[in-house]
Amino acid sequence: MSNDVEEFFRDCPGETTDVEKIVQQFIDRQRDSSGQLTRPIVCVTSGGTIVPLEQHCVRFIDNFSGGTRGALSAEQFLLAGYAVIFLNRRHSIQPFTKGFPSGQILDFLTDVLEPDAAPLHGVHVTESASELVSDCVSRAKEAAAQGVLLRIPFETLFEYLQCLRVISAELRPWGRRAAFYLAAAVSDFYIPWSSMVEHKIQSADLGDGLTLTLQKVPKMLGALRSEWAPEAFLISFKLETDDRILISKASKSIARYGVHAVVANILEKRKEVVQLVRPAAVASSGSCQPAANSGACHEASSEGVQVDEILRGKETFIEAPLVSRIVQLHEQYQQEANQ
Amino acid sequence: MSNDVEEFFRDCPGETTDVEKIVQQFIDRQRDSSGQLTRPIVCVTSGGTIVPLEQHCVRFIDNFSGGTRGALSAEQFLLAGYAVIFLNRRHSIQPFTKGFPSGQILDFLTDVLEPDAAPLHGVHVTESASELVSDCVSRAKEAAAQGVLLRIPFETLFEYLQCLRVISAELRPWGRRAAFYLAAAVSDFYIPWSSMVEHKIQSADLGDGLTLTLQKVPKMLGALRSEWAPEAFLISFKLETDDRILISKASKSIARYGVHAVVANILEKRKEVVQLVRPAAVASSGSCQPAANSGACHEASSEGVQVDEILRGKETFIEAPLVSRIVQLHEQYQQEANQ
Repeated sequence: MSNDVEEFFRDCPGETTDVEKIVQQFIDRQRDSSGQLTRPIVCVTSGGTIVPLEQHCVRFIDNFSGGTRGALSAEQFLLAGYAVIFLNRRHSIQPFTKGFPSGQILDFLTDVLEPDAAPLHGVHVTESASELVSDCVSRAKEAAAQGVLLRIPFETLFEYLQCLRVISAELRPWGRRAAFYLAAAVSDFYIPWSSMVEHKIQSADLGDGLTLTLQKVPKMLGALRSEWAPEAFLISFKLETDDRILISKASKSIARYGVHAVVANILEKRKEVVQLVRPAAVASSGSCQPAANSGACHEASSEGVQVDEILRGKETFIEAPLVSRIVQLHEQYQQEANQ
Repeated sequence: MSNDVEEFFRDCPGETTDVEKIVQQFIDRQRDSSGQLTRPIVCVTSGGTIVPLEQHCVRFIDNFSGGTRGALSAEQFLLAGYAVIFLNRRHSIQPFTKGFPSGQILDFLTDVLEPDAAPLHGVHVTESASELVSDCVSRAKEAAAQGVLLRIPFETLFEYLQCLRVISAELRPWGRRAAFYLAAAVSDFYIPWSSMVEHKIQSADLGDGLTLTLQKVPKMLGALRSEWAPEAFLISFKLETDDRILISKASKSIARYGVHAVVANILEKRKEVVQLVRPAAVASSGSCQPAANSGACHEASSEGVQVDEILRGKETFIEAPLVSRIVQLHEQYQQEANQ
């Protein structure tokens, strides 16, 4: 492992023993009597990491992300028969809540709950919302009952990367059956724990302004790909606001870290269209096959990569055609190992 | 208005015309046929402001705050007969949700909802959760029906301060009947809109690290107290992690900005105990009267101020004795004007 990655983890606060146990137990539940996995496992990361500015954290830098993409993608992987480790920012959007109004539990409840005339139950869901709620709740309960969804919450960059490393180590023995779908918005910059002030930064001490000096976070994608879980299928994400640099930045992730595909997003258009960027050599082995009546794709070459454009089309959420394509590519990747 | 405050608002993005109309309509609903207010009005602010680092905002600095104190305090003011303008961080905790498990709507729903055997309603709340949910929902619906709770969401520091200024201007004509209870965690530092980069900051451009230079936010407490709504009863908040500096910092807010009281919190203990810091002169006019069996108070003098210690005691939430004391002080303040 490179020195800066080692140094990062040496400096991290906290322990990860509990996460290790939970992930081991989850993977064990996916094994049949001969010890083999009954289904592929994907680690979906979701939501933004925070970077504390003080050890007793009052202020922090956050990355914009509600976690919608991660949550909806996790649902799609479950539908496709995967076991899902959902590494998510605490209180970000969860799978099976997409039909609910965003965020405000009380607005939702005052809209859908009403006192029941019958004395047996005090409160029930209004008839109009009943089908929607029933569907979401029953799908969530089904996933819980089957034991195919493991939710692990994080808040800080430190927690996120520590958990990701633990999950990688546990998935490593499963080779190409494992996949990583890194939709979380991870900070590129941070203040190392050991050089962070202990207490809240005092404005009075600072004259006219505050100067923060942040270090670059070591590139963990490279470590994941080359050392933590070298055979796992690895999908990373790139979010930009300027579409002139998007594809070239995605191409660099492929060239530098060897990821199998990059989902490239423009902030404002990300719910309608994404670009799936892959190394040209790998892309040639799988032709683009959009599902009938949903999604679409368009291939274009740029800097030694192949670009599929994935459109929401007639689907409610773009995550349906996107994950469908990823699953297809992951299947090809597993088959290639047997050839 | 001081130059730096004027400069801040000149540089703010966005408009506040809609907020102005909504607040005017809300205040009008609190007036009787002779035009007088039927009840006092308090503006409760809640949750943390964000400071964008880019105009197309991907990264931002946030202040730690779930909004529990503001939400629970708003409930207490409603119970005490106030009309409440609840200026809150979007998706922060709302009044009348304190009984709900924090945050995760799906966990809550899968815990409390179950399919109904009777075909009439598809989903109902489990019997065990029914009383709690019923109580919260009915109180929220009652406040909505009475028109005594106005919720205004904000996200950025810019939106928060623009809204606060609009609300102040609308409450100004009501003199001492109006109060401000500023529980929001407001950033002390920011990057002015006009000097902010447009697109996401690129790590590749930055060498080894990122240096952010933030300016101090002009002190709006002084502007609110002396110009925006000079007669309104003004409560500010101070949160520290280091208890050696808490009271002296609260005292400075009183000396510098003339606030009527400061609720001084230590991050780790804030749900059990707060210090209510007031100017010594005002404090002498009102003796501390803790409610029987709940809360407690203890007076001590420090740097020309009077300090009441307010304890949660046997109450479920410390906001009950805290707001009870604030309401008492606000009543005295209104009576003093008639003497």
